Formats: sequence, structure tokens, C-alpha cells
Amino acid sequence: MDISDYISSRRARVEEALQQYMLRAEPPLTEHIEAMRYSLFADGKRVRPILCLAAAEAVMPTTDNQAAVLPAACALECIHTYSLIHDDLPAMDNDDLRRGNPTSHKVFGEAGAILAGDGLLTFAFELLSRPEPAGVPDYDRLRVILLISRAAGPLGMVGGQVLDLAGEGQQISLETLREIHSRKTGALITAAVQTGAILGGADIAGFQALTTYGEKIGLAFQIVDDLLNVEGTAEQLGKAVGSDAARQKATYPAFIGVAATRQMAQETATAAMEALAGFDHRAEPLRELARYIVNRKK
Amino acid sequence: MDISDYISSRRARVEEALQQYMLRAEPPLTEHIEAMRYSLFADGKRVRPILCLAAAEAVMPTTDNQAAVLPAACALECIHTYSLIHDDLPAMDNDDLRRGNPTSHKVFGEAGAILAGDGLLTFAFELLSRPEPAGVPDYDRLRVILLISRAAGPLGMVGGQVLDLAGEGQQISLETLREIHSRKTGALITAAVQTGAILGGADIAGFQALTTYGEKIGLAFQIVDDLLNVEGTAEQLGKAVGSDAARQKATYPAFIGVAATRQMAQETATAAMEALAGFDHRAEPLRELARYIVNRKK
Repeated sequence: MDISDYISSRRARVEEALQQYMLRAEPPLTEHIEAMRYSLFADGKRVRPILCLAAAEAVMPTTDNQAAVLPAACALECIHTYSLIHDDLPAMDNDDLRRGNPTSHKVFGEAGAILAGDGLLTFAFELLSRPEPAGVPDYDRLRVILLISRAAGPLGMVGGQVLDLAGEGQQISLETLREIHSRKTGALITAAVQTGAILGGADIAGFQALTTYGEKIGLAFQIVDDLLNVEGTAEQLGKAVGSDAARQKATYPAFIGVAATRQMAQETATAAMEALAGFDHRAEPLRELARYIVNRKK
Repeated sequence: MDISDYISSRRARVEEALQQYMLRAEPPLTEHIEAMRYSLFADGKRVRPILCLAAAEAVMPTTDNQAAVLPAACALECIHTYSLIHDDLPAMDNDDLRRGNPTSHKVFGEAGAILAGDGLLTFAFELLSRPEPAGVPDYDRLRVILLISRAAGPLGMVGGQVLDLAGEGQQISLETLREIHSRKTGALITAAVQTGAILGGADIAGFQALTTYGEKIGLAFQIVDDLLNVEGTAEQLGKAVGSDAARQKATYPAFIGVAATRQMAQETATAAMEALAGFDHRAEPLRELARYIVNRKK
């Protein structure tokens, strides 16, 4: 299979669904809704929703019922986008550029950016609890809300950002770095895969295997992010290169060097693929996504 | 009935439940959890959870099954608390004092306060989606999550704060002021009453009547807030008096004077009580709470 085609097609579905679900810009809240849309439609890779769809496809009888998964996939992207907006704030990472564009607070001011993030986070739970599409058992919807709220919450993504900020300029251990990554990036990526598993109808063994895949792929994703921050170009990344080093952030390359980091990313992706050993051809997109994630250039 | 006793007893249950549900402070996230607890346990009035419990009691056969309502009641308080933390930020209202204590960002820094708010908002949805207590139909849980996420979201509470900030120092109409209040304060208070109605098992007519009650009581609450900001003492309020005027915020007293504002508060509370005409003695706490809210001194 051609993973580029797969990504393009699933990404298009996610874009279309996000456009469909997103609140309209009505006065007097036009600028607020615009601020949410500005970051949400800023050419994101849509990694989390695509992983969510691919995980569902790995266990669904057919791939034509993605309507059941799209609202949750889009909710994951809303949560990811809110976290980027808040992380970029002057009081946090103080970044001017994101996905090649001025960050939210540069365009809408600090208050506007904080509220755009708050709005996207809250709207994500509206998407997760809407009664559409029919056919998803209420019990499964609630399981998804629970696991996403935990993954995004104080002991997950929010906690990861807390630890990330606390670690700046500090001597931290490789173990601590792993924990920061696991909470800040890994938790929501794992939740994306788990969400697809649940909404796709995975059995217990399938859910567990996909959870392992999600954990490994989340780790691999962040390791590669660290690599790209060292090696990529600003044009590719759409944000400042070397910003981690400038901020004295601990990264894998800083700990173990570029070559060992690249090897670690490969091994982690391989471990992700091994978790899918019991799956048939329907898991091929997940396998290819693991390869894609370690070889990506942005 | 003695409404003070009622409030004390329900408030005690809410405090106990919040303590029980709240995440523990474990290293290395000790300070983050502490930041959430700092604002959550800062002597709040617990208006939203108490209204939620009272609405449930108004339709439940007996009052001894409040366990079904307490998690949602506590989630409402988490959302309210997060909104206070973010509203107080330097980029927003820039307040130093809240509930008589230094605001979150004064104690934990801006980043710490933003993340404490994000954590509380996300944790609220964990509370709403946990499978405990048993006995609440999944369908009702989802209805509650949907209405709370809408009430707290971009077209509700977050949108209200957007409009509030946009209106500062501007000439706005009484109609606009009403809309700001309705979104910023009214929506979540109405949702609190609706949540109690759903989890208490209200029928359609009961739900509609309680919705009307919630809308009226939310409006009355904010009108009285405006009055107290003009008339109260800093000691009573635990925050700066006259801050609205200093910030050139539109308020009811600024529009129509103190006497007419007080009369409007009374009339709105009366309309709230009238919505309960078809309810029996079990709605007595809601009726007394309407009186209490307009006569409160802080």
C-alpha cells in the first residue's frame, strides 16, 4: 500500500469532518470562533485523528463505517490544537511561529489565545458527547470520553507540560525525559489509537495490543520530534529550529547523540509493529504509519 | 425550612465529595495538583453544585440517592473554578485577589495558573464520564456531558468571557450586557440545574420547568453580583470592590441605578420561583435558594 495516499485520503476526511462539525462564526463571537479555526485549520498533520481512524479500520469488518469514528477523531485534533495554543503562550514556551504561521497569541492577543484554547478543549467534549452518529453504543462513547479526559488531563498531557516547563534549564535524567514525553505527547497519541480500537469494536486482546502499539508509536513520535528539532529546517518544521537547545530543554539527542536517537526511534517503531503481529491486512495502515512516523521530515 | 442549614449540609457533602474525587498530589506533579486544589478548596460558595443537588432532590422520590448526582455536581465546581483562574490572569481581568486569597497566578505563576485551569477543566470531564456511581443510565450521563460542554464552551461561558473582555471600556447596550451575563454566568448555572434534573430523573415537563428556573436564577445571580460589586465590602467579597467601575465594565447598576437593579433581581428571583409552581415540597430548597441568592451579601 502507498501510505502517502492513505494519509492524504484520511486527512481529507478529517478536514472535511472538522469543517462540518466546527461551530460557525456568528456575531458577536465571530472573532472567537475565528481564533479557534485559525489554529485548527493551520495545516496540521492530523496524526492523532489518522491514527484513530487507522486503529478502527484494523478491527472493523469494513472500512466504510468511519462516520462512527470521525467525531472522536476530530475531538482529538481539537484537544491537540488547544494544547499547542496554550504551550505557545508567552508564559509558557513563548513561541512566535507555529505550523509556519504566527502563533495564536500573536494574532489574537494573549486573552484571545487562552480563550481559543479553552474553547477548543471544551468543544472537544461536545463533539465526544453528541448523539451523532447513531449506532455507537453509549457505553463505548463514555469509555472514550473517560480515556481521553484522563490522557489529556492533569496526570496526562497537562501534567506533561507542567513537567516540561519545570525541567527547563534543569539537569534531568533520561528517565524523567521519558516520563515528560510519555505524558505530554504519548498519552494523547495512545488515547487516539485506543479510541479507534473502542469505536471500531476491538475485543479485549485487540484493545490491549493496540494500546501497546499506541504507547510505542507515541514514544517514537516524540523521539523523532526531538531529532527534527536538531536536524530539520525551519521551512520544513514551520517553527524555529534548535529552539529546544536554546531553551536548554532536555532532548534525546542531547542525552545520547543523534545516531543513537535515530536507532532508538527505529527500534521503538519496530516494537509498535510487533504489537500488531496478531492482526491481519486491515492493520497494514497502522504498520505503514509506524514507518512513516520515524522517517518523516516534519 | 432553614435554608442556611440546607446550604451547610449540602455544601459539606460537596466538600467531602470533592476531597474524595480529587486527584492526589504525587511527585513529580505535586505542585500542579496543589495548584488545582488551592483554587478548588478556597472557600467557594458551591452555588452550582448545591443548585444541582437541589434540582435533583426536587424530582427524586427520596433524597438519599445523592451519590448519583455528586460527581456531576463536583465537575460543575471544577469548571467554575477553572474559569475563575483563567479570568483572573494578567492577560484577562488581572486580579490579585480571589475569595480572599492571592489569585492562582500570584502563587503558582502564570504558566502554573493556566495549566491548573486546563487541568481542572479536563478533570471535570473525567468526573462526568467515570462509571461510578452505578445506576445512572449511560444515556443520561452523555446528555449531561453534552449540555455541560455546551454551556461551558465557545458559545457559552468561554464566549461570555470573550464578550466581557471585548466590552470593557466600550459603550454597550443593556441587551449586550444581558447576553454577556447569560453566556458567562447564566449558562453554567442553568446547566447545573439541568444536570440535577436529568440525574434526578425529571420528566420532560419537569426538565423544562427546571430549565426556566435555572435561566432565571442564573440571571438573578449575576444581577446581584453587579450590585455587590458596587455595594459590598472587600472583606465580604474577598475581592476588590468597585473593580467593575474601575475597569469601566458595564453593570446593571451603571445602566439603571442601584434601586432599579435591586428590584430587577427580586423580580427575576420571583420568576424563578414561579417556574416551580407545579412542584411539591421537594422543590422547597430551590425556592429558598432563589430568595437566598438575591439577599446574599457575598
